[in-house]
Amino acid sequence: MRTHYCGELRAEAVGKTVSLCGWVDRRRDHGGVIFVDLRDRTGVVQIVSDPERTPQSYSMAETLRNEYVVRIEGRVSQRPAESLNPKIPTGEIEIYADQIEILNGVQKQLPFQVSTAETETIKEELRLKYRYLDLRRDRMTRNLTLRHQVIKAIRRFLEDQEHFIEVETPILTRSTPEGARDYLVPSRVNPGEWYALPQSPQLFKQLLMVAGFDRYYQIARCFRDEDLRADRQPEFTQLDMEMSFLSQDEILALNEALVCHIFKTVKGLDIPRPFPRLTYAEAMNQYGTDRPDTRFDLKLVDVSDIMANSGFKVFSGAVKSGGIVKVLPIPGGNESISNVRIKPGGDLFKEATIAGAKGIAFIRVREGGEIDSIGAIKDNLTPEQKQELLTRTNAQAGDLLLFGAGDIPTVNKSLDRLRLVVGEQLGLINPEQINLLWITEFPMFEWNEDEQRLEALHHPFTCPHLDDLDDLKTARAQAYDLVYNGIEVGGGSLRIYQREIQEKVFSAIGLSEEEAYAKFGFLLEAFEYGTPPHGGIAYGLDRLVMLLAKEESIRDVIAFPKTQQARSLLTDAPSQVDLKQLKELYVASTYEPEADG
Amino acid sequence: MRTHYCGELRAEAVGKTVSLCGWVDRRRDHGGVIFVDLRDRTGVVQIVSDPERTPQSYSMAETLRNEYVVRIEGRVSQRPAESLNPKIPTGEIEIYADQIEILNGVQKQLPFQVSTAETETIKEELRLKYRYLDLRRDRMTRNLTLRHQVIKAIRRFLEDQEHFIEVETPILTRSTPEGARDYLVPSRVNPGEWYALPQSPQLFKQLLMVAGFDRYYQIARCFRDEDLRADRQPEFTQLDMEMSFLSQDEILALNEALVCHIFKTVKGLDIPRPFPRLTYAEAMNQYGTDRPDTRFDLKLVDVSDIMANSGFKVFSGAVKSGGIVKVLPIPGGNESISNVRIKPGGDLFKEATIAGAKGIAFIRVREGGEIDSIGAIKDNLTPEQKQELLTRTNAQAGDLLLFGAGDIPTVNKSLDRLRLVVGEQLGLINPEQINLLWITEFPMFEWNEDEQRLEALHHPFTCPHLDDLDDLKTARAQAYDLVYNGIEVGGGSLRIYQREIQEKVFSAIGLSEEEAYAKFGFLLEAFEYGTPPHGGIAYGLDRLVMLLAKEESIRDVIAFPKTQQARSLLTDAPSQVDLKQLKELYVASTYEPEADG
Repeated sequence: MRTHYCGELRAEAVGKTVSLCGWVDRRRDHGGVIFVDLRDRTGVVQIVSDPERTPQSYSMAETLRNEYVVRIEGRVSQRPAESLNPKIPTGEIEIYADQIEILNGVQKQLPFQVSTAETETIKEELRLKYRYLDLRRDRMTRNLTLRHQVIKAIRRFLEDQEHFIEVETPILTRSTPEGARDYLVPSRVNPGEWYALPQSPQLFKQLLMVAGFDRYYQIARCFRDEDLRADRQPEFTQLDMEMSFLSQDEILALNEALVCHIFKTVKGLDIPRPFPRLTYAEAMNQYGTDRPDTRFDLKLVDVSDIMANSGFKVFSGAVKSGGIVKVLPIPGGNESISNVRIKPGGDLFKEATIAGAKGIAFIRVREGGEIDSIGAIKDNLTPEQKQELLTRTNAQAGDLLLFGAGDIPTVNKSLDRLRLVVGEQLGLINPEQINLLWITEFPMFEWNEDEQRLEALHHPFTCPHLDDLDDLKTARAQAYDLVYNGIEVGGGSLRIYQREIQEKVFSAIGLSEEEAYAKFGFLLEAFEYGTPPHGGIAYGLDRLVMLLAKEESIRDVIAFPKTQQARSLLTDAPSQVDLKQLKELYVASTYEPEADG
Repeated sequence: MRTHYCGELRAEAVGKTVSLCGWVDRRRDHGGVIFVDLRDRTGVVQIVSDPERTPQSYSMAETLRNEYVVRIEGRVSQRPAESLNPKIPTGEIEIYADQIEILNGVQKQLPFQVSTAETETIKEELRLKYRYLDLRRDRMTRNLTLRHQVIKAIRRFLEDQEHFIEVETPILTRSTPEGARDYLVPSRVNPGEWYALPQSPQLFKQLLMVAGFDRYYQIARCFRDEDLRADRQPEFTQLDMEMSFLSQDEILALNEALVCHIFKTVKGLDIPRPFPRLTYAEAMNQYGTDRPDTRFDLKLVDVSDIMANSGFKVFSGAVKSGGIVKVLPIPGGNESISNVRIKPGGDLFKEATIAGAKGIAFIRVREGGEIDSIGAIKDNLTPEQKQELLTRTNAQAGDLLLFGAGDIPTVNKSLDRLRLVVGEQLGLINPEQINLLWITEFPMFEWNEDEQRLEALHHPFTCPHLDDLDDLKTARAQAYDLVYNGIEVGGGSLRIYQREIQEKVFSAIGLSEEEAYAKFGFLLEAFEYGTPPHGGIAYGLDRLVMLLAKEESIRDVIAFPKTQQARSLLTDAPSQVDLKQLKELYVASTYEPEADG
């Protein structure tokens, strides 16, 4: 039916007769000559129908409307010099249509214009409802094509260069002990019992290591029934990997090679290796976050020790009650940031309070080592404290120092937030720059205030740092995250494979052996039969592709996403179902009291 | 940690020092010298520890037990001539262990022996419960590796040679109108509403064609809540494809190239193209089934016209009441098949009755065109009828003619069954032979006795044969199945893309426009906005891999399958869940009356 894709024709084809199939992107009538931009998934090409040169196609060309599906036969011609269009890859040529066949028309009014020439912003609700039209648009075609290329690059690298085997793990499975809620599926054959959709293939990939598969990967669908945020979907896709007999350094090196391969393949970019690494402690100290955007500098400086004995009670009090005082130094900030913005009512003040801070103290550095402040800070610093502050923050005349004081999480959170806002506003971020960074040595546990106990920050199979086995409560984990321009795109850990260490960890989170077996029995039993040292990682594929596509929502890189209300506007799922179906499954909805149980 | 895989070492490595990681497949003690077969996913290699040559590893070698995880360093040596083992790829070499490190032991008694040397049959229940040990076994490692290779071959062919794009479609979706029951998932965020897990991505792949993606594929997980048979799983994997702008012949040719690529890549076999084709009518006529095993001949012969006026009432009566009389001629059958087997109580008689027949009439062909029969057949045939029968069936002296008479489905079903049994028993089937065959021109509809109406044999978007539009009730569909040695491995169709034809089909199955919209609204609406001609196919990947692996159950080519009771013996899914979880989802089990709704 066709000989070429539209978007792939070039000047070399001039003189050839081609047959093309696609959609009418636009039709223009120029003084009796009809121009049609014909579009397929590879792009557009210009079709010409001229009552004099191609009389046999002209009457058909006149009937074409946007989004008609047509087949065109014609000769590829060089465009005249004045009609060259360097903006599109096919801009040197056009096709004189000998024949135009309408394969299908459009029966309804289009809800929005699809044309590549269209720049109007379309409401997302409309795009999602008519997703099949939205996906015809250049942007979405490019995004899904990019997604495919990323996945293809991943597969080729892992299969061809690193001996990975892809194994499919179950979707109908048992609840895995991870953070979020499970989606449940009633079993008809086993009434009263439920499957859970997997939050990740974690247990299965570890079992595959026990089974000797040694290097496993899967592009895996995962499910989390969360209260949805902008960047989450009920189902999402994960690049899931697990490896045996590798050290953490070997795992990170292999993954760096993988990530570089992706960038090289889909973007043509060479990313330098090895990637920088920060420990969790360093990242929190320097950036106030475990996923710093390192495309710009603006590091935080801890000045708690200087301020511990200062006369400024807000600072010294914070340190005395176990908190900290940190500074976000902003070079040239005296000029770029006014007092109004920092004081109550200002935008920076607001950012800090959203993050939980009560306000922002600040100092402006003047010529000759002088400093200015609004409140009582300046007067309550000794000359030595002042000098030490300027030295520690490497402050120069003209710099602005923003302070956070209080409990550690709030100080870090508010200064992290301020740093990102200021970095953005001062144009310190080069949007073309790509910074990839490992964060390592996460803490093993965090304190669960509700349950008054430690819980595993990643999951209870994460292996502690071997130097920290004696006091597990504060132990570091052999866990790592990959951060891409301030966004976490992957994370993993070495796993525990020795029984003694596993028991210690269960004991640290207050899980008895019986409870542990009730929860993870089959995995723990598997570990008794010859488990290799192993570790793994998982990447949020939607998010990675979103960043590569320079999109701001993962919905724009998923073919058929759901809304934040977990609903498909296209199919209107979820929906009510026949009571008969529910009866067969031995379940009932309890939502409507009048529904028959 | 390691330099090589065990199974990949060859004589070229002699003299090298290598480091290997793996499992102790077997340990043997030969007069003070210890031999260890070390196994990883690539195979086994022989390790030697000798108190004289490698004293430093000997004491450790003595402590090794089966399935210990070890790391071994040593020199690759040529085996002495008397120890060469041509049965394994590493049989020319062995490794003198300088160092043996136990990475992990085995704490429990193994439920079964894992060793590649083990040929004992293990109960499937035990294999499924300890799947991680079962997967270590040579057979299962090979099966999963083969599965990976098949999928890899498919991806490479479709991506590199045929411009397909892989697109992921939703798992949490809306019930699709196909045959089986849906698995349902309650929505917490939209209480009282349910998602369905997809029986196939059918609707989404058609929407992707509307969206212009033109050539789509996916290795897709599908779900059917069926009453389980031996060869079914609640979740299964499908190679799902859809293409625009291709004729049926082009689609079949592309798929033949794909299938040949798979055989070439994973088996090294050249399958001749094009594949033979039979229409549904021809297949039913010649073989009594739409998935004939054509590795052996034994074609059925319709003799209804000859028997319509015969004096043998069983035959003439069958024809008069709208049925048929068909013959399964068995060359040399007089010698190979006794009367006892055909008469009541015999095994062939039993096969025929299982298929619904009341019995088997038969004729034995003698020298000189004479015939013998037990019942009254012989005496009730005129010489002309007898002659015509022998000519039509091409019968020679010594041949046995088995008859089926009655309604068409029963005759076909019973003779198909007899043909397969006889073909098998007479050794007519070469197990190494590979016959691939298209069945085309399936009927559009079949009669649903329960609902007293026509229903679509495939689905109501299948396009009728364009010659048959005037009387759709008996129309042929533009649908095709791929049959591999008598087993259906794939099937598809051209889809309707024109509104008028779609309306005719709905009308033929008694679906009003309102009902059609209620059921398939979003797809029908999509079809209004410029739908290309398109068609597709789906392959049962589990079944295809099973055949390639020469296994008899798809469970043996799935990493973590479920039993026929839809249960995972490994994880014990499905399971009961917390009432709290159900309450959050606004659902309750109605199975146990005492459970609180």
